[in-house]
Amino acid sequence: MLQVSPSDDERRYWQSSVSRVEADTVRVRGYDLTELIGGLTFTEATYLLVRGELGTPQQIVVLDAVLNGVLDYALQKSGTVAARYIASANPNMAASLAGAILAIGKNTLAPEDTAQFALDAHRRLVDAGIDLEDRERVDALADEIVAECRAARVRIPGLGHPVFTYEDPRAVKLKAIAQHNGVWGPVGDFYERIHAAFTRLPGKQTIPLNDVGMIALILVELGFTPDETTGVIAMSTLPGVVAHVSEELRSGRPIRVIDPSQVDYEIDERDFSVDRKHAGW
Amino acid sequence: MLQVSPSDDERRYWQSSVSRVEADTVRVRGYDLTELIGGLTFTEATYLLVRGELGTPQQIVVLDAVLNGVLDYALQKSGTVAARYIASANPNMAASLAGAILAIGKNTLAPEDTAQFALDAHRRLVDAGIDLEDRERVDALADEIVAECRAARVRIPGLGHPVFTYEDPRAVKLKAIAQHNGVWGPVGDFYERIHAAFTRLPGKQTIPLNDVGMIALILVELGFTPDETTGVIAMSTLPGVVAHVSEELRSGRPIRVIDPSQVDYEIDERDFSVDRKHAGW
Amino acid sequence: MLQVSPSDDERRYWQSSVSRVEADTVRVRGYDLTELIGGLTFTEATYLLVRGELGTPQQIVVLDAVLNGVLDYALQKSGTVAARYIASANPNMAASLAGAILAIGKNTLAPEDTAQFALDAHRRLVDAGIDLEDRERVDALADEIVAECRAARVRIPGLGHPVFTYEDPRAVKLKAIAQHNGVWGPVGDFYERIHAAFTRLPGKQTIPLNDVGMIALILVELGFTPDETTGVIAMSTLPGVVAHVSEELRSGRPIRVIDPSQVDYEIDERDFSVDRKHAGW
Amino acid sequence: MLQVSPSDDERRYWQSSVSRVEADTVRVRGYDLTELIGGLTFTEATYLLVRGELGTPQQIVVLDAVLNGVLDYALQKSGTVAARYIASANPNMAASLAGAILAIGKNTLAPEDTAQFALDAHRRLVDAGIDLEDRERVDALADEIVAECRAARVRIPGLGHPVFTYEDPRAVKLKAIAQHNGVWGPVGDFYERIHAAFTRLPGKQTIPLNDVGMIALILVELGFTPDETTGVIAMSTLPGVVAHVSEELRSGRPIRVIDPSQVDYEIDERDFSVDRKHAGW
Repeated sequence: MLQVSPSDDERRYWQSSVSRVEADTVRVRGYDLTELIGGLTFTEATYLLVRGELGTPQQIVVLDAVLNGVLDYALQKSGTVAARYIASANPNMAASLAGAILAIGKNTLAPEDTAQFALDAHRRLVDAGIDLEDRERVDALADEIVAECRAARVRIPGLGHPVFTYEDPRAVKLKAIAQHNGVWGPVGDFYERIHAAFTRLPGKQTIPLNDVGMIALILVELGFTPDETTGVIAMSTLPGVVAHVSEELRSGRPIRVIDPSQVDYEIDERDFSVDRKHAGW
Repeated sequence: MLQVSPSDDERRYWQSSVSRVEADTVRVRGYDLTELIGGLTFTEATYLLVRGELGTPQQIVVLDAVLNGVLDYALQKSGTVAARYIASANPNMAASLAGAILAIGKNTLAPEDTAQFALDAHRRLVDAGIDLEDRERVDALADEIVAECRAARVRIPGLGHPVFTYEDPRAVKLKAIAQHNGVWGPVGDFYERIHAAFTRLPGKQTIPLNDVGMIALILVELGFTPDETTGVIAMSTLPGVVAHVSEELRSGRPIRVIDPSQVDYEIDERDFSVDRKHAGW
Repeated sequence: MLQVSPSDDERRYWQSSVSRVEADTVRVRGYDLTELIGGLTFTEATYLLVRGELGTPQQIVVLDAVLNGVLDYALQKSGTVAARYIASANPNMAASLAGAILAIGKNTLAPEDTAQFALDAHRRLVDAGIDLEDRERVDALADEIVAECRAARVRIPGLGHPVFTYEDPRAVKLKAIAQHNGVWGPVGDFYERIHAAFTRLPGKQTIPLNDVGMIALILVELGFTPDETTGVIAMSTLPGVVAHVSEELRSGRPIRVIDPSQVDYEIDERDFSVDRKHAGW
Repeated sequence: MLQVSPSDDERRYWQSSVSRVEADTVRVRGYDLTELIGGLTFTEATYLLVRGELGTPQQIVVLDAVLNGVLDYALQKSGTVAARYIASANPNMAASLAGAILAIGKNTLAPEDTAQFALDAHRRLVDAGIDLEDRERVDALADEIVAECRAARVRIPGLGHPVFTYEDPRAVKLKAIAQHNGVWGPVGDFYERIHAAFTRLPGKQTIPLNDVGMIALILVELGFTPDETTGVIAMSTLPGVVAHVSEELRSGRPIRVIDPSQVDYEIDERDFSVDRKHAGW
């Protein structure tokens, strides 16, 4: 194999501080993998892998709550449905799980947008030298941010739910657990003021801060980057997807379709020879 | 970057004969990419890339026919539906196309199984020294292979269709084009004898050789490996998937679900505290 | 199965005008699939499926050229490499192709950004009532758009190449073919003026309009939406990926890795028991 | 929306017993989601979702150990590398995670093969009426199974490791935890006898039962189906992949390639015009 001796000032093509394979073990974030097996829960391992450090008991309680926040949503979750259609054609667990993860994006389950928005908003607050206790200036900035979003016709991520009004009970529970464990701070506080500013708009007073939005705020407080928040939520949906795909594989229905009775097909009969001649062939 | 001078007898970690990036061009299977742009059709390019050689006019006519063999199947194709569910959640073309491709597998659209089966069967014919003209011995081996499949409860890939009986008109048309262009040979011939043997079984006389099966036979005759036949069919379905995903992205319906009226939910209410105590916590 | 009779004013959950499955055929964009097999090339079928209409001979020549524009780029294309790593672990053609497609995005191979940018820019030109012949006003608007991008620190999509300066020969060839076939228009013209404005900036005079950018402009002129341009380019890369995955599957090297000599692993040994106690457990 | 009242004896198109969305909550495997948030760990939730029941404290300790069994393997894991290549081209967490999951298959990380093999083998033991204590008959059957695999040139899944001989320390630790918690039984016992039979073959005495094989045996004992074992292992690898993708996204290196110095490119220059004429055009 290649023998390379880079000079001291030269960086290799890849850098990594996640783990290293040694002669007879794997050192994960510095710890011997064999000690981690049986030494901590999977939630602690998740925190360690992504954050690079062991979490405190309080942080782990909060991360467990977050990981349980969106466990399953029956066949009313696009990714789960996609996974079952894939499994019906290609009875393969891994391919089906990948399909579910691909349905995480702008329209659903991507806390990264809320996380980035909340971090950017808080950065503006800090840069403007505004104290969170200064209610008047805080609300003025919140109003300004909401107004900007409306002017740019940009949705504020993390708000709104198809069913819940005023409050999303999952979000409420998650916040209570986070606060109880000391995992709450100014980024979440200011985002809630922006939410409040939004609900002062006409017709918007019932719009809640939703579960994915709250997950974003809590994960940011735990130190996760926006991209990592989406990674964590992808993980958190997998047990449900595994259950659905397993159910599908046992259902004995190959090649699922959409019944024609549910589709408006707008297709007129056309004459190929005539039309192709018209096209100049 | 790395400077490596392997000795003559040492192979590097990677080998490739597909293309090479040179100072100011890309040499694709030996040809300057700039000459290929405008110099041949995409179907010819497909043949060149996968087979490594330029196709003859006859081979390209046949490959064009094969690539048009399964263009679209409305919302009665699992992969298309999966792609639309993904697009409704994650409005991203690439992610949606990947989802459709993941629905290619054992139950549908994977000619690789038929290709491998047909090649293996033909190998047995050759190894047994049987001449294809020796009708009796050919049919005896075909019967034997069918009997083995039934004993092992293994489906013969490439046979059967939910709608068509006796013949699949797409398969018939594809074979006619292949034969007319001299792209037909003993592997396909012997597979057809196995099909005939299968239809001699009681209750099986209406089972046709289907479109994907025929595509497998023709691509094998064109020199594609079993894996490559699946690659070609994946390509061939993409224009339809692009059209469907585009339609979905313009539909304005975020987050598609399965309406609860179409689902039997078998879920009884359970008491968490009681059950968890029972579990020993 | 479900029997549904929606009243006339009620739309079903799905709409589609791509194809419809009828008793004994599939009607694709209005045409009988059996006629399309052998009746047109795959490139024509691609145009038909995505655009909804048969292309003219000129349009098809141009689409063929576009589809051959980025055929392969050896192991210097991230998606190809990802596909080969996947194949080495999971020897499955479909999974590997999906992996390659997932590597189409903001950093490479997504013409959708250029297409959207070019359409938006041209819309501004039209809304401002500026005639493309009015060189002075056109260049003033082009300068303004470039200045805005720089102020917002936004990259202009479609410009720049790691190797080529001033011109990307693939782009030049593609434009010549498009113009020769009457597939060129004001959207492309104005984008080129923006490119020219950009190259008037200090230090930017050598930056070319790249191949993916040119593909975007031509596909827009052919009537494709931005999302569809990415779909077309995804298709166009598949023959090369099929070839690479096939090569990988035949290589006999399972489970590819990155050789440790190419990685700076920055991992210190840590004591699990001590650190976990410190974390409060 | 559709109004459907199926008669009592008619099943709807879909069945599910994973969760149901109700007016103001989600009932997951019968339990109110709001109670699960903060009410149990994510590992317990995983067990509940996939198995349908709450786990005992012993079962959850074992599942936690299994989920930590293959946390990360640096850049010596094909899926992690694929994910980083994807992220370098398409800086999107979800797409990158999907890429890593697609690298789970026949060559690595798919415990489903071992799980199925172990279940089938144990079924033969039971069907033959052999008591596990009857050492002689057990070993005779084990020898017979090994001989069959060799005759069919089929690899026994779950055995062998590139580094470890005789024992894989992760497997040893996992088994100790499983046994200590009463999660071990005859399927695992008989598989170990097959392993022992295999090591009696000449030249095979150092081949260990590997980590993925042990995970398969333990998950089978916990009641997971073979497909579900692959689902669980896919989940278990995600924290590491999230960490690697995050590292990649922060690395600032767009569009990763394979350096040409690591590739043997076997491509001769060819003359397009000449060869195409030879091909008959």
